[in-house]
Amino acid sequence: MSTILLASMTSSRNDMVPSVVVKDFLFGVDELENLFIERLEEAVEIPSVSAYAERREDVFRMSEWTASKMRDLGVEVTLKPLGKQEDKPELELPPLVLGRYGRDSEKPTVLVYCHYDVQPAALEDGWKHDPWVLTIEENGRLCGRGTSDDKGPLIGWLNMIEAFQKAGVEVPANLVFCFEGMEENGSFGLRKALEEEATKFFSDIDCVCITDVVWVSDEQLSIPQGLRGILFYLLTITGADQDAHSGGFGGQISEPMTDMVNIMSSLVDSSGKILVPGIYDNVQPVTAEEYESYNKLNISEDSLLGGTGGRILHETQADALIARWKKPSLSLHRIENARPGAGAVTSIPAKLVGKFSIRTVPNMKAKDINKLVQKHIEDRFKSLGSKNDLEINCAHESDWFYESSDHWNYQAAIQATQEIWGVNPALTCEGGSIPIALDFKEILQKNVLLLPVGRPTDGAHSINEKLDKNNYINAIKLYGSYLKEARALWQQKRQA
Amino acid sequence: MSTILLASMTSSRNDMVPSVVVKDFLFGVDELENLFIERLEEAVEIPSVSAYAERREDVFRMSEWTASKMRDLGVEVTLKPLGKQEDKPELELPPLVLGRYGRDSEKPTVLVYCHYDVQPAALEDGWKHDPWVLTIEENGRLCGRGTSDDKGPLIGWLNMIEAFQKAGVEVPANLVFCFEGMEENGSFGLRKALEEEATKFFSDIDCVCITDVVWVSDEQLSIPQGLRGILFYLLTITGADQDAHSGGFGGQISEPMTDMVNIMSSLVDSSGKILVPGIYDNVQPVTAEEYESYNKLNISEDSLLGGTGGRILHETQADALIARWKKPSLSLHRIENARPGAGAVTSIPAKLVGKFSIRTVPNMKAKDINKLVQKHIEDRFKSLGSKNDLEINCAHESDWFYESSDHWNYQAAIQATQEIWGVNPALTCEGGSIPIALDFKEILQKNVLLLPVGRPTDGAHSINEKLDKNNYINAIKLYGSYLKEARALWQQKRQA
Repeated sequence: MSTILLASMTSSRNDMVPSVVVKDFLFGVDELENLFIERLEEAVEIPSVSAYAERREDVFRMSEWTASKMRDLGVEVTLKPLGKQEDKPELELPPLVLGRYGRDSEKPTVLVYCHYDVQPAALEDGWKHDPWVLTIEENGRLCGRGTSDDKGPLIGWLNMIEAFQKAGVEVPANLVFCFEGMEENGSFGLRKALEEEATKFFSDIDCVCITDVVWVSDEQLSIPQGLRGILFYLLTITGADQDAHSGGFGGQISEPMTDMVNIMSSLVDSSGKILVPGIYDNVQPVTAEEYESYNKLNISEDSLLGGTGGRILHETQADALIARWKKPSLSLHRIENARPGAGAVTSIPAKLVGKFSIRTVPNMKAKDINKLVQKHIEDRFKSLGSKNDLEINCAHESDWFYESSDHWNYQAAIQATQEIWGVNPALTCEGGSIPIALDFKEILQKNVLLLPVGRPTDGAHSINEKLDKNNYINAIKLYGSYLKEARALWQQKRQA
Repeated sequence: MSTILLASMTSSRNDMVPSVVVKDFLFGVDELENLFIERLEEAVEIPSVSAYAERREDVFRMSEWTASKMRDLGVEVTLKPLGKQEDKPELELPPLVLGRYGRDSEKPTVLVYCHYDVQPAALEDGWKHDPWVLTIEENGRLCGRGTSDDKGPLIGWLNMIEAFQKAGVEVPANLVFCFEGMEENGSFGLRKALEEEATKFFSDIDCVCITDVVWVSDEQLSIPQGLRGILFYLLTITGADQDAHSGGFGGQISEPMTDMVNIMSSLVDSSGKILVPGIYDNVQPVTAEEYESYNKLNISEDSLLGGTGGRILHETQADALIARWKKPSLSLHRIENARPGAGAVTSIPAKLVGKFSIRTVPNMKAKDINKLVQKHIEDRFKSLGSKNDLEINCAHESDWFYESSDHWNYQAAIQATQEIWGVNPALTCEGGSIPIALDFKEILQKNVLLLPVGRPTDGAHSINEKLDKNNYINAIKLYGSYLKEARALWQQKRQA
């Protein structure tokens, strides 16, 4: 936790933006609160669901709404077309909304990523209110699809500019915006666009800030510095051309399911231990300091389980968090009948696809892991003496992500969190994978900060999505404070 | 094969129905061929699909059509209502069409079972012709839904009566008809109706003949004397209230799929051997005579595999047939996510239902097998030290069926097959289960004959269902010959 203590001392050294200016900004945010909520209201009313072809028009509408709001604030906007959607060539991809605000060589240039598309939603799914109307509950919750993921965090950046303008204070950093419209549907076209713009629109950026993240728990403010990688496998076992009647053929023909469950059972045990030999070899050990800090985090068991009602495999909170943050895991997802229209419940499936994935952590190497997994499965299959055919396919691979919190980008975020929320954020990891974080890091070669806005119980991909008003308003303040700190630290570093 | 030789000698001793009379009957069948095909045509045009609520009216229409044709021939008909359908109480079950033809104490009384409902069918499924129009192909195939399963075999009995009438010859046996309208949809209500009528409508029957059966292969005429039983299991493993994200929770919570594949992999191996201790203890050994006779059967590999393209686990034809006729088998059918609407492919399923079944043979006892299976699974689960919950449920149980071919009912069928087809039928088994065969045997306590009409490639539950004209016409003759032989043998037995 030494980095946090270090960060907490930086504010007094920030002499470039006097604190009175910050106060004016903060005051400006509070004054404009109603306007900011109305702005979110407008955004929620556009059902920009990227997963549904019939909503694609609304996603485009949302890109134009966003661009127009940005222009109103003086942001230079370019809508970058991304072409057709790979898997549905009849569909045009929504554009990247690129923006630039400020070109002051005395300020750092921060690339801000958010997305303006949302998950599907329908009242019939069990929503309390119409998901496409912003409803403010008595407890101050702003309810509606996209409030937390990711329209609220996106609009926060525009609100921030307006609050600075209202306060008559310059925004402390140059901003480059990259707002995506396909995040909830595979981020088609994003990686290619980043590659294209790396030496153009994004050529002069100093760091990246992604605000499509939530706290580790409702009770514990946090900044994640690590994400697990993923290797996703398809295991295809074929024994026949079509499903067979188990009465007529059971015992006579080779059954793919027998091999499938055997191989799958050789991958992981009931305690969660991965059984593939050598898989743990390069896993970075957890330090005693980390262990202790994880045990101290304020995370209720409910939060730890995210409402799933799952059963924790570990004795201590630290062990549970280490299992999802610092250790690889292997999950068996499903076994699907690969023959469409396969019917009778008592049939012998002719062809099956088993799906499983491995989450990776520093310093596992995807290529090596893939070799170990393939070899293990092939050996196991050989040992069965089966007459079926086996095919192993690593269908998706995304590396883990890890940033040191020593970087000024992280230090600025830590400091800003202290200023606005009054508490030290915990430095955590995420068990999941956010491929775009790694894309930004790999392509732009800059430090990538994941700055949380919402809470894990916001229901981002579920019914009754909400963002606490507190989180919405404080995010605006947090952004301003973060840019102020970033500028100070960036300048210090430049001068050093 | 000694029983077959014995049977072939009985015809010369049949002095009750002179062979000239039989010749007139056979001639009558040929003369009425066009009428018989028109009758099948009418039946095919009624889409009596018992599985679809919206077709229930057509099933009723089919019962009335059948009753009316029977009455036209002088059969006394009763439509026995079966009440509401258990699993869909808004639906009335189609009636059992009960019929009686003849009450001569000098003749045996044969209970004939067929069904007048059919599997679903639609041109869009890939049928060459409209499934609800009888199409006669150049090769003489009668194509249409229900031609083989089971309208053709059912109408054959009515045609037989008509041919005897045409020939001016008495039908050699008293007939009791039991025609069902729910065979393709769980046979709801049948068992209860059999129990009710055992001492009433069916009180005086001497044997049962079921003609909802096909030959063992297209090349090999056969009469099955055995059917395997079935124990169908649901294995439920619960670990959480809802599916969890494998990134966020993988490694931290207990995953039901891990236990599921482990338990399933402990049930059967890739060679088809069941791994539950003690399960083979009461399996009747195969005799050297049976082994030899099975190797001699005229069954192509294609027929053996029934077009599934499966891979045979055995070296010889006899071993393959023994595996499906004389040995138990255990098939793993599927693993289903038990939480409805479960979505993301990378999720950790919270609750799973695994489905598997065991086919049983003489002299396995279902109750004992069930105990062995439950104990094996419970022991295995305990050994995993899992935090999940396990539930084992034997959802369906139906015993194996076996009749000795020494009985006059079988001997009559063997003899009739020789007379009409000119070949000795092989005495075989079926790997599948026909619960109604066992129901008739258990409830009525009479010998139950399974008399094949169609061929295994008729596509009974598939597209392009057909019945060869040869099989349709010969079935009518076979029925007549069978009744003639049955009468002779029954009388001999009575006199002895």
